[in-house]
Amino acid sequence: MPVQTLHDPGRRAFASDNYAGVHPEALAAIAAANGGHEIAYGEDAYTARLREVMRQQFGTDAETFPVFNGTGANVVGLTSMLPRWGAVITAETAHINTDEAGAPERMTGLKLLTVPTPDGKLTPELVAREAYGWGDEHRAQPLAVSITQTTELGTLYTPAQIRAVAEFAHSHGMALHLDGARLWNAAAALNLPLRALTTDVGVDVLSLGGTKNGLLGAEAVVVLDPARVTGLVYLRKLTMQLASKMRFVSAQLLSLFEDDLGLRSAAHANAMAQRLRAALEAGLADGSLPGLAFSQPSPANAIFATLPNDAADRIRARVRFYDWDRARGEVRWMTAWDTTAADVDHFVTVIGEELAR
Amino acid sequence: MPVQTLHDPGRRAFASDNYAGVHPEALAAIAAANGGHEIAYGEDAYTARLREVMRQQFGTDAETFPVFNGTGANVVGLTSMLPRWGAVITAETAHINTDEAGAPERMTGLKLLTVPTPDGKLTPELVAREAYGWGDEHRAQPLAVSITQTTELGTLYTPAQIRAVAEFAHSHGMALHLDGARLWNAAAALNLPLRALTTDVGVDVLSLGGTKNGLLGAEAVVVLDPARVTGLVYLRKLTMQLASKMRFVSAQLLSLFEDDLGLRSAAHANAMAQRLRAALEAGLADGSLPGLAFSQPSPANAIFATLPNDAADRIRARVRFYDWDRARGEVRWMTAWDTTAADVDHFVTVIGEELAR
Amino acid sequence: MPVQTLHDPGRRAFASDNYAGVHPEALAAIAAANGGHEIAYGEDAYTARLREVMRQQFGTDAETFPVFNGTGANVVGLTSMLPRWGAVITAETAHINTDEAGAPERMTGLKLLTVPTPDGKLTPELVAREAYGWGDEHRAQPLAVSITQTTELGTLYTPAQIRAVAEFAHSHGMALHLDGARLWNAAAALNLPLRALTTDVGVDVLSLGGTKNGLLGAEAVVVLDPARVTGLVYLRKLTMQLASKMRFVSAQLLSLFEDDLGLRSAAHANAMAQRLRAALEAGLADGSLPGLAFSQPSPANAIFATLPNDAADRIRARVRFYDWDRARGEVRWMTAWDTTAADVDHFVTVIGEELAR
Amino acid sequence: MPVQTLHDPGRRAFASDNYAGVHPEALAAIAAANGGHEIAYGEDAYTARLREVMRQQFGTDAETFPVFNGTGANVVGLTSMLPRWGAVITAETAHINTDEAGAPERMTGLKLLTVPTPDGKLTPELVAREAYGWGDEHRAQPLAVSITQTTELGTLYTPAQIRAVAEFAHSHGMALHLDGARLWNAAAALNLPLRALTTDVGVDVLSLGGTKNGLLGAEAVVVLDPARVTGLVYLRKLTMQLASKMRFVSAQLLSLFEDDLGLRSAAHANAMAQRLRAALEAGLADGSLPGLAFSQPSPANAIFATLPNDAADRIRARVRFYDWDRARGEVRWMTAWDTTAADVDHFVTVIGEELAR
Repeated sequence: MPVQTLHDPGRRAFASDNYAGVHPEALAAIAAANGGHEIAYGEDAYTARLREVMRQQFGTDAETFPVFNGTGANVVGLTSMLPRWGAVITAETAHINTDEAGAPERMTGLKLLTVPTPDGKLTPELVAREAYGWGDEHRAQPLAVSITQTTELGTLYTPAQIRAVAEFAHSHGMALHLDGARLWNAAAALNLPLRALTTDVGVDVLSLGGTKNGLLGAEAVVVLDPARVTGLVYLRKLTMQLASKMRFVSAQLLSLFEDDLGLRSAAHANAMAQRLRAALEAGLADGSLPGLAFSQPSPANAIFATLPNDAADRIRARVRFYDWDRARGEVRWMTAWDTTAADVDHFVTVIGEELAR
Repeated sequence: MPVQTLHDPGRRAFASDNYAGVHPEALAAIAAANGGHEIAYGEDAYTARLREVMRQQFGTDAETFPVFNGTGANVVGLTSMLPRWGAVITAETAHINTDEAGAPERMTGLKLLTVPTPDGKLTPELVAREAYGWGDEHRAQPLAVSITQTTELGTLYTPAQIRAVAEFAHSHGMALHLDGARLWNAAAALNLPLRALTTDVGVDVLSLGGTKNGLLGAEAVVVLDPARVTGLVYLRKLTMQLASKMRFVSAQLLSLFEDDLGLRSAAHANAMAQRLRAALEAGLADGSLPGLAFSQPSPANAIFATLPNDAADRIRARVRFYDWDRARGEVRWMTAWDTTAADVDHFVTVIGEELAR
Repeated sequence: MPVQTLHDPGRRAFASDNYAGVHPEALAAIAAANGGHEIAYGEDAYTARLREVMRQQFGTDAETFPVFNGTGANVVGLTSMLPRWGAVITAETAHINTDEAGAPERMTGLKLLTVPTPDGKLTPELVAREAYGWGDEHRAQPLAVSITQTTELGTLYTPAQIRAVAEFAHSHGMALHLDGARLWNAAAALNLPLRALTTDVGVDVLSLGGTKNGLLGAEAVVVLDPARVTGLVYLRKLTMQLASKMRFVSAQLLSLFEDDLGLRSAAHANAMAQRLRAALEAGLADGSLPGLAFSQPSPANAIFATLPNDAADRIRARVRFYDWDRARGEVRWMTAWDTTAADVDHFVTVIGEELAR
Repeated sequence: MPVQTLHDPGRRAFASDNYAGVHPEALAAIAAANGGHEIAYGEDAYTARLREVMRQQFGTDAETFPVFNGTGANVVGLTSMLPRWGAVITAETAHINTDEAGAPERMTGLKLLTVPTPDGKLTPELVAREAYGWGDEHRAQPLAVSITQTTELGTLYTPAQIRAVAEFAHSHGMALHLDGARLWNAAAALNLPLRALTTDVGVDVLSLGGTKNGLLGAEAVVVLDPARVTGLVYLRKLTMQLASKMRFVSAQLLSLFEDDLGLRSAAHANAMAQRLRAALEAGLADGSLPGLAFSQPSPANAIFATLPNDAADRIRARVRFYDWDRARGEVRWMTAWDTTAADVDHFVTVIGEELAR
């Protein structure tokens, strides 16, 4: 008997864009790449085509290296930018600092120099706090800056803000990495092509996410300035991020660029978050949501809010999501490519009912 | 326009079981697991079901940790068995020594103590060559043995041979790891259940392959003796081997156990290798394959042979495969779950034509 | 011709206790341990005696492992306390975070979770900011706390303050490490035996400094609670901290305990700092030191002060010391076992002259 | 009461040159460097002078980096020569492979590609066995060769033999490292200056030993071709090999070059080994040493011999030494700078008495 559906496909959550499944067009891309024998480890037609598409997207210098997951993309990309004595300046809230179990430090010995931020965003001034000590052998050498777009707090950098960080970094001998696990959401929110947020504003190396935007599992390190990296093919393998049947990873990534699937999916997720926020703002305005407040703006597909922990727990018992900072009563609500208006409306009702108890 | 088929699905090779695509039943399993929102990072119904199926297969103590690829499975599994000062005794030809770019050493500091073997197989006598020095702080401490089934040279361990290595290892305070990237092929060749080659003969931790046997990309660390490991959930994450949408990895692995797909596929691949070897043996017997000789037995899905390099190159130009040791004129021919009798017969013809030139 | 004195032995600085030379009694200890053949790598009579002396000092459970330098002691000690997935909560200003070039992260994959502090001292409340997430595989697991005594800002923990941190750590499943590069100075300042600041108040593992207190080069990892560590002999070797002629390292450390040399030297250094501070306080009181202010209390052998950068540079041109935070005009003045009253008085004069310009 | 002599200075061993103490001239150098305040971490007059002396010895390009111990010198030197994906071809018996607890692999992720040798010496043919696979991301990239002089088996490379390995390495894009823990003994045996065995024959980076040749503890990484390395100052610090009071390390190393102390000491140790070997050869010739045979030539200060294990144990009970390969009954007898003719003669007597039982 073949594998059966074991989960409840009707369950909806606002917990993570990783809870969503695979977009049918991504599945179709996998099927299109199937059949016959194709060279393993990246010498396949899909990876070749992906490289070409990415050059169209990001510029003719762009080099693309598909990997398995976002932590892999970040570690491979950052390591390719840094010697063994290098350090990365990043926001305290950065995924590489908080959610990767120390992989950057443990896998390739990256030292993170973290800076507190109000909204998950670095500025030249914030970067400057850790940008010193070059030539001093006692200090891990700050040679890269890593920013996240959209940030872990759901906020957005404008192109000008990225450019400012890039210029500061470059003028101090540091390269700029962008963790783009949700870059599509940023591009959709700003209505800009991916390159306007990366190549055009000085990003040197990009972790381009796919999984959170409707793929089964596919990310890529995209090198925008090849002069900033070294040894990436070796680093991808030795960090265990080289897929044998890479054609299926590349085909997934390709699907995001066909008929603008990536932007479509991200724009939809963003729109669902706007719908959620708008409904909640209305509830705040009319006093029907006692105890609720927003802790960050919501330009893309994440909403950060505070509410009493007991209400949060009651809501969560009906529709799953994660606490962000329980001490402050802060929660994160995320939408995905497959969130529906009905999902949102039901969630608003649930929130209202539980806050009113 | 959706992603199109870009490769020639009619192309056939004898290069690697990684050249083959995804079995339709594995794709169906992915589709069955799709839809709706399901908890990420392994708290999903498919991973739960996989754990249960694996306990049925490997015994009630078995603990299963899906990962992305074989190098990942090996590094995560071995690291969970070893303290920071541990070393692994393994065959010089082991994949962990020759084909993983130093990942075991570089990612988690494993020291490999390698032993030359005639056929890729360790014996207690061979293990004993490096099994010494416990308590001597100058020597990396041999605390694990790693064997491969089927081996990188296409050979097989009998259950008794594994048991002998296990007993030697255990009696010297070492745990036994088995790299089972092609364990299914061994099970099919020996007509034995997986546990007869693992749990029942003293294997402590297993890297269970799926990708080479018809999956898109799915492997697992299977702990058979939980007392031998520690911290596996943390190690999987920090080595960047934790899939966010794990339901799809687990569903693939599940498919191998439904209707015996894993055994069916492996048995088919083995049968195609036997067909190839038999035809070539016949050609050797009648003198029609001058210059060809076999360098290893072929109990499963790999054939190792020697032939003149120029003939090998002419054959390869028509049907792709890899040199194994060009200095010795040794090549490796592999079959896969989707190799057809016609593929084999055509390859035999090609070999005959080119050797006859 | 033998090696000649090449430096100016008359030069005095307030830059670092590492600028001072070797105390004659430590040199005499080296000479006493010389001659004949003695077993290498720690099986010598001096290391045996050191272990015994340390048990007298720190309690019968104490285990002592001589190493080369402070970074080595910290990395070996902390690594022995932590699994591969462990993290260390420490002050942002901790030497392990700021001055070891990322050795903890790079050598053994330690993740540091840093907390800003006003004075270099952790409290239970400050530790609590990073003490969460146990069992969450995405987070580096906080399993140790590291404090420094005296701190990098020259401040002191009282025994009760250490005990409070220890109790918080232990009650949350974390072990307590103390970087005691200047523990002697703390003991002298508080007029307490070493164990009152360590064993008796819950410290589990100690980096005991010697070099900054008059030795040529000798530090030790001292394990106070052996149940908290594992594999230390192997870790010391594989981190390249195992001295072959260990008798000379151990003899140096022994010298600190003979006739209370360690306490004598530290007390002298402290007294010189008090003399310096008192003279400067007097100058502040009478208005003769315009622009000078103290930025930390000076209970031991370090003084942190702010003054105009140009004045600092003029002073430094005459008597060497280091900026601490040039942006804030903060400097660090340190005394050593060999600082003389005349050195202090001359330095006060120099400071006065240059501030008065 | 000052530290007393606790060991028996009359005890003599043939176990290791690390059992010997510190040469009086080296102690005098430490004393000469003592007194006053001198800049820490290598900006001192002795380190400056050492750099100059080393340039005189090894050529004007030579760059010198004092470190604590031989494992440190090897790891720092090799790491400076290799990217994160590099591998080192070395003899199976090399110290970096057998006696450093996996430090090269664990500290900086070096992969060792080992080759069996009859006498501890690599040749171009032996190096060639592992010199392949450049550009193949699955294989750790062979980018350095490491040889040991004198070897771990007490044998010697001639300058021409080193040159041959260097030329092979360089012509294949690999750099040459020499572990010179006993380079002085080689130089003395060949009656050649150090540079004739290093700079002049293509060695790129050298671990120059001092401790085994009469120092307290001092080694150096000496870079002979600066174009082959990168980041050494950072690597020395982050591997915890940077001495704070470096003046004393450098002064020790300087002492070896004054009045040819290094060569004198090594020549003496060699002469004592020759005396031992000659006496034993005489005993063999006259049949008075039944069961003894030599397993390697003894050009420098080590003698490898085989004899019955029970006889070896009886001899060892009287004069300490180490088994080399107990399974083969092989032992190693080493002389040192302080071995006396009387020591040798007594040892010959003991060997004779115990073999005759």
